[in-house]
Amino acid sequence: MTKYFTKYSNAFIPTLREVPADAVIASHRLMFRAGLLRKLANGLFTYLPLGLRSFRKVEQIIREEMNASGALEIKPTVVVPGELWKESGRWDAMGESLLRVKNRLDNDFVVSPTAEEVFTATVRDELSSYRQLPLTLYQINTKFRDEIRPRYGVMRGREFVMKDAYSWHADDASLDETYQAMGRAYRRIFKRCGLSVIPVKADSGAMGGSGSEEFMVESEIGDNTLILCKKCDYAANVEKASCAPDFHPRPSAAFAKAAAAGTPPIEKKDTPNVKTIEELCAFLKTDAKNFIKTLIYRAVNVELDLSNAPGCSKLERKKSGDASSAKSGNEAYPEAFFAVAIRGDLDVNEVKLASVLKASEVTLASDADVTRLTNAPVGFAGPVGLTSLPLVIDHTVTGMNDAVTGALEKDTHFQHAAYGRDFEAWRIEDVRTVKAGDACPLCGGELYTKMGNELGHIFKLGFKYTRSMNVTYLDENGKTQTPTMGCYGIGVDRTLASIIEEHHDEAGIVWPVSVAPYHVIIVPIKYDGAVKEAADKLADELTKMGLEVLLDDRGERPGVKFNDADLTGIPWRIVIGDKGLAQNTPQVEIKKRTEKENRMIDLDKAAAEISQKIRAELEALNE
Amino acid sequence: MTKYFTKYSNAFIPTLREVPADAVIASHRLMFRAGLLRKLANGLFTYLPLGLRSFRKVEQIIREEMNASGALEIKPTVVVPGELWKESGRWDAMGESLLRVKNRLDNDFVVSPTAEEVFTATVRDELSSYRQLPLTLYQINTKFRDEIRPRYGVMRGREFVMKDAYSWHADDASLDETYQAMGRAYRRIFKRCGLSVIPVKADSGAMGGSGSEEFMVESEIGDNTLILCKKCDYAANVEKASCAPDFHPRPSAAFAKAAAAGTPPIEKKDTPNVKTIEELCAFLKTDAKNFIKTLIYRAVNVELDLSNAPGCSKLERKKSGDASSAKSGNEAYPEAFFAVAIRGDLDVNEVKLASVLKASEVTLASDADVTRLTNAPVGFAGPVGLTSLPLVIDHTVTGMNDAVTGALEKDTHFQHAAYGRDFEAWRIEDVRTVKAGDACPLCGGELYTKMGNELGHIFKLGFKYTRSMNVTYLDENGKTQTPTMGCYGIGVDRTLASIIEEHHDEAGIVWPVSVAPYHVIIVPIKYDGAVKEAADKLADELTKMGLEVLLDDRGERPGVKFNDADLTGIPWRIVIGDKGLAQNTPQVEIKKRTEKENRMIDLDKAAAEISQKIRAELEALNE
Repeated sequence: MTKYFTKYSNAFIPTLREVPADAVIASHRLMFRAGLLRKLANGLFTYLPLGLRSFRKVEQIIREEMNASGALEIKPTVVVPGELWKESGRWDAMGESLLRVKNRLDNDFVVSPTAEEVFTATVRDELSSYRQLPLTLYQINTKFRDEIRPRYGVMRGREFVMKDAYSWHADDASLDETYQAMGRAYRRIFKRCGLSVIPVKADSGAMGGSGSEEFMVESEIGDNTLILCKKCDYAANVEKASCAPDFHPRPSAAFAKAAAAGTPPIEKKDTPNVKTIEELCAFLKTDAKNFIKTLIYRAVNVELDLSNAPGCSKLERKKSGDASSAKSGNEAYPEAFFAVAIRGDLDVNEVKLASVLKASEVTLASDADVTRLTNAPVGFAGPVGLTSLPLVIDHTVTGMNDAVTGALEKDTHFQHAAYGRDFEAWRIEDVRTVKAGDACPLCGGELYTKMGNELGHIFKLGFKYTRSMNVTYLDENGKTQTPTMGCYGIGVDRTLASIIEEHHDEAGIVWPVSVAPYHVIIVPIKYDGAVKEAADKLADELTKMGLEVLLDDRGERPGVKFNDADLTGIPWRIVIGDKGLAQNTPQVEIKKRTEKENRMIDLDKAAAEISQKIRAELEALNE
Repeated sequence: MTKYFTKYSNAFIPTLREVPADAVIASHRLMFRAGLLRKLANGLFTYLPLGLRSFRKVEQIIREEMNASGALEIKPTVVVPGELWKESGRWDAMGESLLRVKNRLDNDFVVSPTAEEVFTATVRDELSSYRQLPLTLYQINTKFRDEIRPRYGVMRGREFVMKDAYSWHADDASLDETYQAMGRAYRRIFKRCGLSVIPVKADSGAMGGSGSEEFMVESEIGDNTLILCKKCDYAANVEKASCAPDFHPRPSAAFAKAAAAGTPPIEKKDTPNVKTIEELCAFLKTDAKNFIKTLIYRAVNVELDLSNAPGCSKLERKKSGDASSAKSGNEAYPEAFFAVAIRGDLDVNEVKLASVLKASEVTLASDADVTRLTNAPVGFAGPVGLTSLPLVIDHTVTGMNDAVTGALEKDTHFQHAAYGRDFEAWRIEDVRTVKAGDACPLCGGELYTKMGNELGHIFKLGFKYTRSMNVTYLDENGKTQTPTMGCYGIGVDRTLASIIEEHHDEAGIVWPVSVAPYHVIIVPIKYDGAVKEAADKLADELTKMGLEVLLDDRGERPGVKFNDADLTGIPWRIVIGDKGLAQNTPQVEIKKRTEKENRMIDLDKAAAEISQKIRAELEALNE
């Protein structure tokens, strides 16, 4: 191929001073200002040439690392048959974010938001022998999610490009091997993009698998609260973050009972018109930390064995009809209620609770259910004397031996309640929401929180799709088996926007060289005569060295050109003017976008110097 | 990046012996058999790894040639606002092939079948000065057309990938320059893909512009009839093919009249119960070539001036309300009728007729209209004495001076009718459908027909979208102007399938090296011991030379491996066995897919030899 450089006047880079009013984050503002992006409609964007160049580089980095990990790229359609989504059960489960279409024959289609079904159907038709496993397939393709409130530019658009990979395995060990390989590939991808990611153990409850890792970037507008340790590299999504060691449960109820030896006997108190924990604490002159909060939860599709649990003897239990369940065919309780006790200053994490109960969902019980189950109005539940339903206590409650709690009667509380002496639990679990200031479960250091945006997610799916969609193969003994499955996604648009979030200053974008739309911008003070000749020659020279060069040939003032060079964030700028060329040895000015200072260099050394610097930087990112 | 070769057992190439019953053309059959493609639903396909590798190469060739032509790649969304389609008028015009979607907010969207609207809207917002023109933007992106009857695999699928480019210009000369550059780029693209294309002047009537060229490949299942000359390189779509020189019109009616000097006087004949031209010819003992067939057409939105045309004095004429018309604002007749006379053995080409009449559409008039306008039942129209509507005669009729024709009365015809003596015409035009055996309009050679499939189309759109969507810029004098526009498409899937149509034999695909999924397949007779070692080493060596290598590591019999190598069409095959390696100088067998013969070569010379051959072939395709 002929190599050629780009002239700015032909490059369609419509930079702006003004930005749309809704552009509240840096990447959104800068993608508009630097002429990378335009809005087509709410949540729909057009990448302009400069933006697409960087976008394609991110795609290519992802593709290279996927291929290097052994994954194979395929390309299904974007519009896919609704039938497949009905098979998996997600046609109903996905709700309104799924963009559904009927064609002229009245058939149902979906504009893919993700592609578990399509990939699983493809593999189902081709898989016959264990020899074909493990297998990892991926695509880099258009996705659509009909967000209620798209915002922050491409950070949360309706249409976006996602790399989604899926793997199939004969056993968990093989799944884990691919899962680990994907984790390594993801770390490399983000490193090559110049991104600092925080890999966190994420919740995987709702998707029905076990084992997952989210790759987060810090973001003021992030969807996720991350729990991080000031001393070690512990990182977790608040939905899943573990409790700190000082809340580990007492070794036994007997031990707890002994610890309560000095506590006065439990005592019932009238607490008329006391409505909140704060009011109660004021009334009894105590602290929320001495209060045992008790909440009643309704859980759906509980797979735990409740045959010996209080109040559960008559619960209906049946084979799960949900073929998409990870443990389809297991028996489950369609509905069960639980009391959950926790220290009064803490919150129950419902995701952790659902995971503990092996339930597909938990929600606070209705007022009517609370009244029926506790024999008291809402607000007076407590662990003492509670026999109508199973009591789950958080680890923190095992340390409480002189507590206030509801007495299962209107306007009445207990004082001096002690775990192990006045009540025991059906289960002791970690169900609290961790918060800033808690101790790190790994090192005891102080935890703090950050808001984060998810760029990638690797996930052990298990049998959810292979069972519901009947994927099988013959094992070494000729026996029919169902493969287990993993899935691995990265949002390309969001990754690109996050690079800008991390790499910008007040003047504009500061691209890492690996994803910069061009490596070098040449700015002739006036594109004419000897300056023009030198600029063209240098651009040619750099291009032949394999660098991507933008030459600002516009008839604008140098200040305008410098501003645009900074705004568009090209890593290296070369300024060529008459004065420099008139030196005994003709000189040009070079400046790195990341640095304040520029310096003069011999014209005939500029290309080699910059090429060497760029290559070194690329190697550092890629190593 | 680390370079690596692919092992067949990891490459997910599910080759087949059987093919789907509906796979009637070679590319469809071979894409399935060679494991390039699988069906997801009717007209929706998934490219598997081997197919996608070739697909991406075709995409990349198109991208490189577009970039080299100065076009800039952008990426709008696939799902686009219906509003834009309403603005252009195509929301209503496109009919059921347009896939329409409503989202959760009840807004209208379209899954793009083409993107004139989106590109025009993007440019509208950024274009201000003539200095920004000309501008050519393109995308390579997913498209959807809800075909009534998708078939022939990806040759006519519902979802496909298209390269679509659009250009904007200050004047026709600039449009023509880009149009010519695109024509050159298209020729290079198809040449690099190893395709023999036939560039033909296509009809451009319906799309409202002037000047267009289609790039066709010969195909038994083609949508288009091409008219080609046996002697010169004349090529046209039958919809637009010109008449041959021996039918050029007589210089004048007077000349024609003189030519009719020896013809007996015109005579009315009763022709009872004669219904077809064949019956009439038998009855009057003459030939269809001596019959003047006269058809009544209804034309819509006629922009010709009919003020002096027979029977048109009372026709309603008004400003065209169709803002999308190329000549919006011109006056037009919403409805007008025309008589068209042509030699009895020939057919009227309605596309050519519409173009002649400057009508948006022509259709045969209803029986009621024919009866009203000719004062006779259907079947007795004729040019003699016809005054109720304008008479258009085909060139061929000007040479007829002793003809039979309808007499505008039931069961009655004229004999001895002569053009120039017994009737004249309102217009003399070329409206016949050219057919095999006619003479070439350029050289007089014999014309023949071929069925063709369109791979690409370049097209001067004119003002259709820029007017309807209000695109303007300021010219050098500060005056507001509307740019003119061109559009340029290539179907990627169809190009890929056409390569297979042109390059296959009974054993499978025979890829041109430029688009082959791999350059070399290494087949170890048994992947073990010294053979394995030599195979791995050779694969590494070739890979380091920049070639793409597939190593067949499967435990299959050599015959199975050879069949798959032929089926998948990899350009070069290297067979490594114990016997060859045991020679004094270890040897391997090399074979080119296009050749029957294989030959032995020293193992240590194989890589250099094959690399040199592949490079030479690539250069020949790319030069």
